[in-house]
Amino acid sequence: KQYRIAVIPGDGIGKEVMPEGLRVLEAAARKHGVSLHFDHFDFSSWDYYEKHGQMMPDDWKEKIGKHDAIYFGAVGWPAKIPDHVSLWGSLIKFRREFDQYVNLRPVRLMPGVPSPLAGRKPGDIDFWVVRENTEGEYSSVGGRMFPDTDREFVTQQTVMTRVGVDRILKFAFELAQSRPKKHLTSATKSNGISITMPYWDERVEAMAKKFPGVKWDKYHIDILTANFVLHPDWFDVVVGSNLFGDILSDLGPACTGTIGIAPSGNVNPEGDFPSVFEPVHGSAPDIAGQGIANPIGAIWSGAMMLEHLGEKVAGKSIVEAIERTLAERTLRTKDLGGNADTTACGKAVADMVD
Amino acid sequence: KQYRIAVIPGDGIGKEVMPEGLRVLEAAARKHGVSLHFDHFDFSSWDYYEKHGQMMPDDWKEKIGKHDAIYFGAVGWPAKIPDHVSLWGSLIKFRREFDQYVNLRPVRLMPGVPSPLAGRKPGDIDFWVVRENTEGEYSSVGGRMFPDTDREFVTQQTVMTRVGVDRILKFAFELAQSRPKKHLTSATKSNGISITMPYWDERVEAMAKKFPGVKWDKYHIDILTANFVLHPDWFDVVVGSNLFGDILSDLGPACTGTIGIAPSGNVNPEGDFPSVFEPVHGSAPDIAGQGIANPIGAIWSGAMMLEHLGEKVAGKSIVEAIERTLAERTLRTKDLGGNADTTACGKAVADMVD
Ligand SMILES: CC(C)[C@H](C(=O)O)[C@@H](O)C(=O)O
Ligand SMILES: CC(C)[C@H](C(=O)O)[C@@H](O)C(=O)O
Repeated sequence: KQYRIAVIPGDGIGKEVMPEGLRVLEAAARKHGVSLHFDHFDFSSWDYYEKHGQMMPDDWKEKIGKHDAIYFGAVGWPAKIPDHVSLWGSLIKFRREFDQYVNLRPVRLMPGVPSPLAGRKPGDIDFWVVRENTEGEYSSVGGRMFPDTDREFVTQQTVMTRVGVDRILKFAFELAQSRPKKHLTSATKSNGISITMPYWDERVEAMAKKFPGVKWDKYHIDILTANFVLHPDWFDVVVGSNLFGDILSDLGPACTGTIGIAPSGNVNPEGDFPSVFEPVHGSAPDIAGQGIANPIGAIWSGAMMLEHLGEKVAGKSIVEAIERTLAERTLRTKDLGGNADTTACGKAVADMVD
Repeated sequence: KQYRIAVIPGDGIGKEVMPEGLRVLEAAARKHGVSLHFDHFDFSSWDYYEKHGQMMPDDWKEKIGKHDAIYFGAVGWPAKIPDHVSLWGSLIKFRREFDQYVNLRPVRLMPGVPSPLAGRKPGDIDFWVVRENTEGEYSSVGGRMFPDTDREFVTQQTVMTRVGVDRILKFAFELAQSRPKKHLTSATKSNGISITMPYWDERVEAMAKKFPGVKWDKYHIDILTANFVLHPDWFDVVVGSNLFGDILSDLGPACTGTIGIAPSGNVNPEGDFPSVFEPVHGSAPDIAGQGIANPIGAIWSGAMMLEHLGEKVAGKSIVEAIERTLAERTLRTKDLGGNADTTACGKAVADMVD
C-alpha cells in the first residue's frame, strides 16, 4: 500500500523543519519498505494569505481530505496576521472539520537532554497527555454587551457534550489500559468551575466503570501543574479538556527540557478524516529564517504519523534514531545548548535510522 | 489603634497551623508594639456544618464584616461534604460578598529550601502572582440540557466585566510600578479562547498606556506555565484571570519547593470590607490530625495581613524570622525533608522574631 501524505509547511520555522522531517521519513520508509507519496501544499500560511486574502483555498477539503494523513509544520505570524484569522482559518479548522478530537502528546525525558527538574533521569518522566481537541473552552459562543461603557462585559461559553467528553475519555482509558502501569489521571477544576467540570468528573467516573483494570485518579488543574514539577513520575496517561490539555502539553515538554523536540498528533481515531501531525513549537517568528530551529519536534511528529498509519516498526526506528542522536550530544541545536543548524541535525537523525 | 482580627481555623490542617500563626503574630505584635485583638469563630468548617446544616450562620456578615481583617486556615473536606457546599458556602462567598477582587501570592525561593528546578538559588525566583478573584471562569451562569441522552450537553459562561478586569489590572500595574524591575506579565490565551481573552488583552493594552514606566509583555497560558519552569527569573509581577491566576499561583510555589510555605491574601484594596489571609495549601485531609503540617504558609499569611493593615515593620519581622528559620535547616517539617512537628516549627519561628 502506498500512503498519500499531504505536506503543509505553513509559516516561520515550519518551513525550515519540514524538509528535515521529510528527509527522516524517507530514510525510514526506504529501510523498512514503506511506500510514502508526498503532495505539497503552500496554503495555511501568511504567504498564501498575502496572495489570496484567505488562509486556504475554497476547496481545501477536496485537496487534502482524502489523504491518509497531513504532515504539518506550523501556522501563525501575529505581527502580520491576527491569530483568529491564521489559526482559526487553518489549524483549528482542521481539528473541527476533520473531527480530530484527540490531541495526543508524549512527554518523555530523552537520553542526553538535561531536565530543568533537579535530579530527573530518563525513565523518570514518561507519560502521555490526551487532550480533547474540538470543544470545551475553545468555543465560539459568546459576545460583548454595552461596548465602551462602564457596564461593558464579555462572555464566552465553555461547551461540553456527552458525545465529546465520552469519546475522549474512552480513548484515554484505552490508551491507559494498553500501557504497563495502566494508570489514568484526569485534570479537573470542579471545586471552582462549578458546572462544566463537575460534569467532566461525572463522565470520568462513568467511563472508569467500563475499565476496571485501569487505576485512575483526578487532580484539580492548579495542583496538577504543581505535581508535574514536583512528581512527574506519578503520571502515565493524563487526560484533560481542550484548555487543560493545552496547558499540560506545554508544561510537560518543558519539564523534559525543551519544547523544540515535542511532537503532537491531532487524531481522528475512526479514520473518517485525515489526522494532522505537527511539532508543538509553532512558527516561532523570533528565530525564523536563521536555520537554527530544532527539527526534532517535526521529525518525532513524523514518527507518530507512521505509527498512526500502522507502520509501527518504521515509526519506532525514527524514535530510536532521535534517542541515539540526542544521547550522542554532538549534533544538537541551540535550544539544547549545541550549535548544529537545522539541516545538520536533520541529517544526523536520518543517518541514525536503521 | 487596636486591630480586630476574625480568626477562622476551618477544617483539617487549618486547625493545626492557625495556633502557630497566632503564636508568631503575637510575638511580632509584642516586639513592635502592635495591638491585635482576636475573635475566634468555629464556622466555615465541616464540624459547624454537621451541627447546623449550613457552613455559616445567617448573620455571618454581621459577625465578621466589621473586622479589620480575617485570618483563615483552610476549608473543605471532599469525603464528607461536596466542594460546592463547603467552598462556595464560605471561601468563595467571602471573595464575592466582601469584594476581595485581588488574590495576591508571592512566589519566592527562600534560603534553605531546595528548589525542584535544577540550579536555582534564592534571588532567582522572586515575583508576585496577582489573580482576579471574583469573576472570569468561576461563574455561576450555565446549565445542562437533554440529561441522560446522547444529546446531553453542559455549558458554563466565563464572564469578564470592564469594571472587574480594569481594577485588577490597575492593581497589578501599580504593584509592578512600585517594584525595582517595574515589569508586568499578563497571562492570556487569546489565540484559543477567542472572545474573553482578546478582551482581556485589549484592556491590558489600554491600562498599559496609563503606566508608561512599566515594561509589560504577555504570554499564552500554555507557554507561560512552561516558562515558569524554564525561566522563572523572567518574572516580576504576573497578572491573570481567576482560573489562570489560580493555576499560576500553585505552579509558582511548587517551583520554589513546597506549597506548604506559600501564603495568600484575598484583598479588598479599598478597605470597604475585610480581607482574608490564608495559606495556599488547603485542608489536606490526608495528613490532618498528625501534627506534621507545615505552619509557615499560615505564618507568612499573618505577615501579609500585618502589611495589609499598614504594619509593615512587624510584617517584615515575621518574613525575616521565616527566612532565618528555613536557612538554619534545623526545625523543619516533613514536606521540607525534616521531622519537626507543626508546633515545634511554629515556636522556632516565633523565637526568631525580632
Ligand atoms: C479551593 C478552590 C476553590 C480555590 C480556588 O480555586 O480558588 C483554591 O484552589 C485557591 O486557589 O484558593
Ligand atoms: C496555536 C494555538 C491555538 C494552539 C492551541 O491552543 O490549541 C496551540 O497552543 C496548540 O497547543 O496546538
